[in-house]
Amino acid sequence: METIKQYVAQNKERMLNELFELLRFQSVSADPAFKGDVLKTADYVAQKLRDAGADNVEVCPTAGYPIVYGEKIIDPANPTVLVYGHYDVQPADPLELWHTPPFEPTVRDGKIYARGACDDKGQFYMHVKAFELMMQTETLPCNIKFMIEGEEEVGSANLSIFVKGNKDRLAADVVLISDTSMISMEDPSLETGLRGLAYLEVEVTGPNRDLHSGVYGGAVANPATILAKMIASLHDDDNRINIPGFYDDVVELSEAERKELNAAPYDETEYKKDLDVTELWGEKGYSTFERTGTRPTLEVNGIWGGYTGEGAKTVLPSKASAKISMRLVPNQSSEKITQLFTDHFKHIAPAYVKVKVTPHHGGEPVVTPTDSVAYRAAQKAIAESFGKAPIPTRGGGSIPIVSLFEAELGIKTVLMGFGLDSDALHSPNEKYDIFNYYKGIETIPLFHKYFTELSAE
Amino acid sequence: METIKQYVAQNKERMLNELFELLRFQSVSADPAFKGDVLKTADYVAQKLRDAGADNVEVCPTAGYPIVYGEKIIDPANPTVLVYGHYDVQPADPLELWHTPPFEPTVRDGKIYARGACDDKGQFYMHVKAFELMMQTETLPCNIKFMIEGEEEVGSANLSIFVKGNKDRLAADVVLISDTSMISMEDPSLETGLRGLAYLEVEVTGPNRDLHSGVYGGAVANPATILAKMIASLHDDDNRINIPGFYDDVVELSEAERKELNAAPYDETEYKKDLDVTELWGEKGYSTFERTGTRPTLEVNGIWGGYTGEGAKTVLPSKASAKISMRLVPNQSSEKITQLFTDHFKHIAPAYVKVKVTPHHGGEPVVTPTDSVAYRAAQKAIAESFGKAPIPTRGGGSIPIVSLFEAELGIKTVLMGFGLDSDALHSPNEKYDIFNYYKGIETIPLFHKYFTELSAE
Repeated sequence: METIKQYVAQNKERMLNELFELLRFQSVSADPAFKGDVLKTADYVAQKLRDAGADNVEVCPTAGYPIVYGEKIIDPANPTVLVYGHYDVQPADPLELWHTPPFEPTVRDGKIYARGACDDKGQFYMHVKAFELMMQTETLPCNIKFMIEGEEEVGSANLSIFVKGNKDRLAADVVLISDTSMISMEDPSLETGLRGLAYLEVEVTGPNRDLHSGVYGGAVANPATILAKMIASLHDDDNRINIPGFYDDVVELSEAERKELNAAPYDETEYKKDLDVTELWGEKGYSTFERTGTRPTLEVNGIWGGYTGEGAKTVLPSKASAKISMRLVPNQSSEKITQLFTDHFKHIAPAYVKVKVTPHHGGEPVVTPTDSVAYRAAQKAIAESFGKAPIPTRGGGSIPIVSLFEAELGIKTVLMGFGLDSDALHSPNEKYDIFNYYKGIETIPLFHKYFTELSAE
Repeated sequence: METIKQYVAQNKERMLNELFELLRFQSVSADPAFKGDVLKTADYVAQKLRDAGADNVEVCPTAGYPIVYGEKIIDPANPTVLVYGHYDVQPADPLELWHTPPFEPTVRDGKIYARGACDDKGQFYMHVKAFELMMQTETLPCNIKFMIEGEEEVGSANLSIFVKGNKDRLAADVVLISDTSMISMEDPSLETGLRGLAYLEVEVTGPNRDLHSGVYGGAVANPATILAKMIASLHDDDNRINIPGFYDDVVELSEAERKELNAAPYDETEYKKDLDVTELWGEKGYSTFERTGTRPTLEVNGIWGGYTGEGAKTVLPSKASAKISMRLVPNQSSEKITQLFTDHFKHIAPAYVKVKVTPHHGGEPVVTPTDSVAYRAAQKAIAESFGKAPIPTRGGGSIPIVSLFEAELGIKTVLMGFGLDSDALHSPNEKYDIFNYYKGIETIPLFHKYFTELSAE
């Protein structure tokens, strides 16, 4: 632990500047306009892996954005850790809400403000620096492999193809991912599950052209009104999702599991204050932790139709659209839910409109075992560096890759995240604490140490 | 009639080219980006009035866009006709749906395609050319005044101030407006009423920032979902508007009036085919003509919120908004309905969101008398030039100015429109028949002739 703290102390500034360089790349995978920057980011990551001491570093082409691979095999007999992360980020808009430019990292009271600061550049880069530390201090106890992708924010479609085609190269004993959150630095936690995702786009078409709302208003169905009615019907009065069969495969938690989950520190007043809402909303009969961690949800991610410009246009629009995504829990299947939603949405469409439903992407829900060597290693590492044992939690987000690893490589994952829910992931003014960044770099080598030791037992 | 036809025949091409010039100005009043073009349009109209022989032509400044005034007083003892029109147009977007550029008039099988071709450049300019005709052929039988404004598409706010301040200058016996439609050139009609308008914008705010839909989804109200539920509740199962007191002042038509209205030719199959819808929608118990002409309506003119760009963004939006307008019928009041809507919308907002309601503009419904000298003059004029008596109809659109004239100047209006409902007003590919354009220029002098004669009786 001393060696670790010392090395971090001596390299503090450089480690931060390198992250800043990484954050300046506008690697928005959802928008083709940023293609050049996304590709540059991959090259930068590859170079940094080489600099840190990785062998066989390669920017592996895919049908989409490349995957950066690198490894250090010290002894085939030792256990192997596969580190996963992603160098792509969410779109930064609405830009006008950022206090400082999203791609010019800015420090305000100890926090780094930038798109990707926490999700996931700040977090995966801790692993690159922790690896450098272990190489420089000659303390790397196991084999390590890096796989950093560029399409996580758009569904990791090509990563699954890459994984299927590189099973030997990716062979490992555990997958280590830092792309999730802790309750707080005072209450360190470890995520034991993630929700799946089914993302679709719907388009409702009324008349074949925008109409004068005076000449036709009242005699022709308005697709914006119809879409509103259709969306409104997707939640019942208890805020349960109103799609036949939607809950069929949902695994209900045991009373014990619910109790443990709700034991985690939670200040509702603080939670509401942070979001500036006077009342929370959610499925009847469940706590906030349960709603975000263990229950499926349906959210409208975007809606648009008609005239949205300045001033007033008296138009009866021809079309109205929405992006709708559902978070899934064990044992729901992304494919099955996508089908259920599509059938239901078409079924409830009245005869006076046409409806088109287009699936975007999905991911499967996962639960990670808490009795594995890897999970116990993570517990020990956190307990040592934070001086406090981590609380097990259920994450609301989705990392589609986790279930893929299990299916294709037969490897379990440990979700050792150092972010905070308040880091504004996917929002304007995303941030990451400098403290968390260094804390992660200090904790990761301990994970490798204990994982190697416990594996030998 | 011979003189008229002859003059039109001799000047056909020039009259069309002048209209094309007028249509090339991008006079979109709703969007400040077009300010320069709107102002140039006013100057062009003023010049054309002077060329036609008008006196005291003036581009009258207002707090917004100027009003073009011009007059020809041949004898104060003669009756005076005040011609109203507007040189501003609706925004042209969505541009990608236009087959030819909206501001480059293009003729396809006898129709002029351009934004404003029918609403209202093509129609008010007929009056300028008819005036030129009467001047050139020395057949102008009465005094004539022109008032062409530039803010009709955004609520005519400054026109009302201008009218209040220029009562003497605008003194007249009737207001003549061509800004409405006929059933068809085979079935000429005269509008005997217009709907009023109340236009508002609503904004629903949930959390204070866009959130990660995984981390927060299910625990915080989604403003897009809530807005959808609120909009959905504004119509009941019979498609009646669900706002307490909304119908209190609505004047129900007598059976006789309904019978006359529904006697007008109407081909539902054609109507649906033109719009490419398999079923019509509307208030239960009323025909299409009644729904668009005599019943109040509520339409979503635009809706937006969250991520509407390319690809998928898993965001729980902070805000969702909509532009909502209501068409009003006698004796509803725009101000009262605006208040009723505002109160109701705030009332139905659940505690977990904040709601902002902003009124845009309004206009009062009007019914024009069918026994007046002016109305009979219009009937005679149309009967002579079309060889068929016009059918009285109720228009669904709104021309806020009409009720203003009545209130401020004590003058009734005649709505002698030559457009067609299929002219795609406010839509891409707006058009106006060249036939209708010339037909209007031929009919207008007859109106002045018969109005002067009947006034003398």
